[in-house]
Amino acid sequence: MRPVTDAHSPLALAQGLIRCPSVTPQEGGALAYLAEILAAAGFTVERPVFSEPGTPDIENLYARLGEGPCLLFAGHTDVVPPGDASAWRHEPFEGVIEGGELFGRGAVDMKGGIACMLAAVLAFLGRRGPDFGGAIAFLITGDEEGPAVNGTVKLLDWARARGELFAHCLLGEPTNPDALGEMIKIGRRGSLTANLTVHGVQGHVAYPHRAENPIPGLLRLAQGLLAEPLDAGTAHFDASNLEFTTMDVGNPATNVIPAEARATFNIRFNDLWTPETLAAELERRLAAAAGNAVRYSLDVRPTNSVAFLTQPDAFVEQVADAIEAETGRRPALSTTGGTSDARFIKDACPVIEFGLVGRTMHQVDERVAIADLDRLAAIVGRVLDAYFPEDAATQRQA
Amino acid sequence: MRPVTDAHSPLALAQGLIRCPSVTPQEGGALAYLAEILAAAGFTVERPVFSEPGTPDIENLYARLGEGPCLLFAGHTDVVPPGDASAWRHEPFEGVIEGGELFGRGAVDMKGGIACMLAAVLAFLGRRGPDFGGAIAFLITGDEEGPAVNGTVKLLDWARARGELFAHCLLGEPTNPDALGEMIKIGRRGSLTANLTVHGVQGHVAYPHRAENPIPGLLRLAQGLLAEPLDAGTAHFDASNLEFTTMDVGNPATNVIPAEARATFNIRFNDLWTPETLAAELERRLAAAAGNAVRYSLDVRPTNSVAFLTQPDAFVEQVADAIEAETGRRPALSTTGGTSDARFIKDACPVIEFGLVGRTMHQVDERVAIADLDRLAAIVGRVLDAYFPEDAATQRQA
Ligand SMILES: [Zn+2]
Ligand SMILES: [Zn+2]
Repeated sequence: MRPVTDAHSPLALAQGLIRCPSVTPQEGGALAYLAEILAAAGFTVERPVFSEPGTPDIENLYARLGEGPCLLFAGHTDVVPPGDASAWRHEPFEGVIEGGELFGRGAVDMKGGIACMLAAVLAFLGRRGPDFGGAIAFLITGDEEGPAVNGTVKLLDWARARGELFAHCLLGEPTNPDALGEMIKIGRRGSLTANLTVHGVQGHVAYPHRAENPIPGLLRLAQGLLAEPLDAGTAHFDASNLEFTTMDVGNPATNVIPAEARATFNIRFNDLWTPETLAAELERRLAAAAGNAVRYSLDVRPTNSVAFLTQPDAFVEQVADAIEAETGRRPALSTTGGTSDARFIKDACPVIEFGLVGRTMHQVDERVAIADLDRLAAIVGRVLDAYFPEDAATQRQA
Repeated sequence: MRPVTDAHSPLALAQGLIRCPSVTPQEGGALAYLAEILAAAGFTVERPVFSEPGTPDIENLYARLGEGPCLLFAGHTDVVPPGDASAWRHEPFEGVIEGGELFGRGAVDMKGGIACMLAAVLAFLGRRGPDFGGAIAFLITGDEEGPAVNGTVKLLDWARARGELFAHCLLGEPTNPDALGEMIKIGRRGSLTANLTVHGVQGHVAYPHRAENPIPGLLRLAQGLLAEPLDAGTAHFDASNLEFTTMDVGNPATNVIPAEARATFNIRFNDLWTPETLAAELERRLAAAAGNAVRYSLDVRPTNSVAFLTQPDAFVEQVADAIEAETGRRPALSTTGGTSDARFIKDACPVIEFGLVGRTMHQVDERVAIADLDRLAAIVGRVLDAYFPEDAATQRQA
């Protein structure tokens, strides 16, 4: 095994990854870069490629080292497009350092996070050697920001088919709103999208009695959906929330009553609901609001995004302790925000998310404080030490 | 003066007009056809062409004969497009007769109506000669179904500038819903269109507290506009009515709260309102509904469509009597339906509208019963006889 060098500092690894232009679905060299370093560190590295008609083929990476209870590090190397590159202070795929910060697309979401996990693992193996009394795995996809069809879901199926088992997972998404250490995600709300169409009868505005305007019907149904909160939240979750995202008629003629009005809404829901119970509640509210006066149809889109919670256990405590030791902050155990691949990983093992500060993610001038990279790597190092205690490894070898 | 021939029957004249393919803005030979017949009957015929940047040049016709109080016949020879000509039972510009009906675009709206007025005038002049004790004029535009910029409005301005005066006007639009004689229009509601925009703050559906969804605001404002009727109607008018014609956000991203939501509505309003008082009422309702919670802007489009009423007078009685004598029906005095060029003519003289049965107007297989053409011409003949009584003409000549 090669010694840990400066090339394996969190900063150097983050720079190396940022310099791979891996905008979804392009691999951009990022997984190859990781594969080489992991293989050199003794990992068995696999590079499965997944396909699905209508979506681009996607490269992925799975690496494992050791025997025994396996701590899984998960993440993605693909990034969202930089947008107008000329609007950036520094070229988005160069990894320029300025004022103590590393600039580049993926700096926090989440090449920086992967770099910290990898640096911590390499340092841990340098300290403890390969017989540390357990196993470490990396499950890295190239399809998180895109359709997410040929990524984590298939990679987990693939691992399951091979009999790979995981004890816990740390997913390195940027979970901190403003400062490192603020927030661990121990679950996520589910997401459900539905299309609502109200059917009317087209006609001339001067003869409304011969027509049936669908717009007042849509107003009525929308009010019916919004009138009462879905719930008041639970111990670990905010209240479920419904947002109308669009409402469209598309009628350019100001003297014509349209035939149809359509709306789309999205619900972020907590652990009081499943997609099925939520769809039933929507139908109940709509039927009550419509009475016999509004003809409508509701199309609830299929979703694989259900609410889930990783019960706070010893692992969560270990991570929180490590964070507090490095940052002085006791992280909030949160389930807020959007969805993530944790919703798939939770079926394989308990999963929590902790990473860098997300403030600049998906934006121009995405960047990370170098000090945060070092501190996140140190946190992961503490987690590894706590998860694989030396005395346990000694007992095992004895 | 040429004698009135079969070529001057309502049917023959209607066929002649239908065979001119005068889809707005094309003259199609229709005005030339009228000009030749009117000139031969002794009318002074003018053919002003009006222009306006951004709109096609439009041909129009003005013809006058006689001295003294002038009865004006108004109408338009332009027609809406036939749509899919193959869907018609008969070619839309051939004027085919089948089963006692004349088929063709414009049969009722309103080449048929013009044909009846012209046939009645020619017959009247045949009976009474040019010294009938008054004047008759035709004001015919080629721009009623289109932008209506270079049509009746400018033709009236042009006539006013020449010092032309009119005592009363009969506009030959199809006013009868189902049977000839049902309805005279003695006024029209006004029409006002407005665009309503609600301003929000774009964001991610998972972080609604960082965004401001404009859609609930739009629902609230729309409810505020629709909650109370504008009025309960007046002696001659239905209640004013507001219809939303479109509501658009155009946001395809189901995880994004949009920045803006837009709606358009149209109000058909009665003689309780002017565009100005109505706009003030809209602002009042919106401000009340918005409170401090909704940021919005209202853009009331300029309108030249105000509500007006021609007070039922002796002329209305003459027309109603003539209708009853020919059809056995006492026509309703109505202000229902859409707008028409009567809204411009009312500034020149009292105007009423009466014509054919509108059921097939603007549709495939537009057609008119030949019996209706004959009866409408007979009605107009009775109106002419009553309007220009023989004893009055004799007295005047004496
Ligand atoms: Zn991410
Ligand atoms: Zn018309």
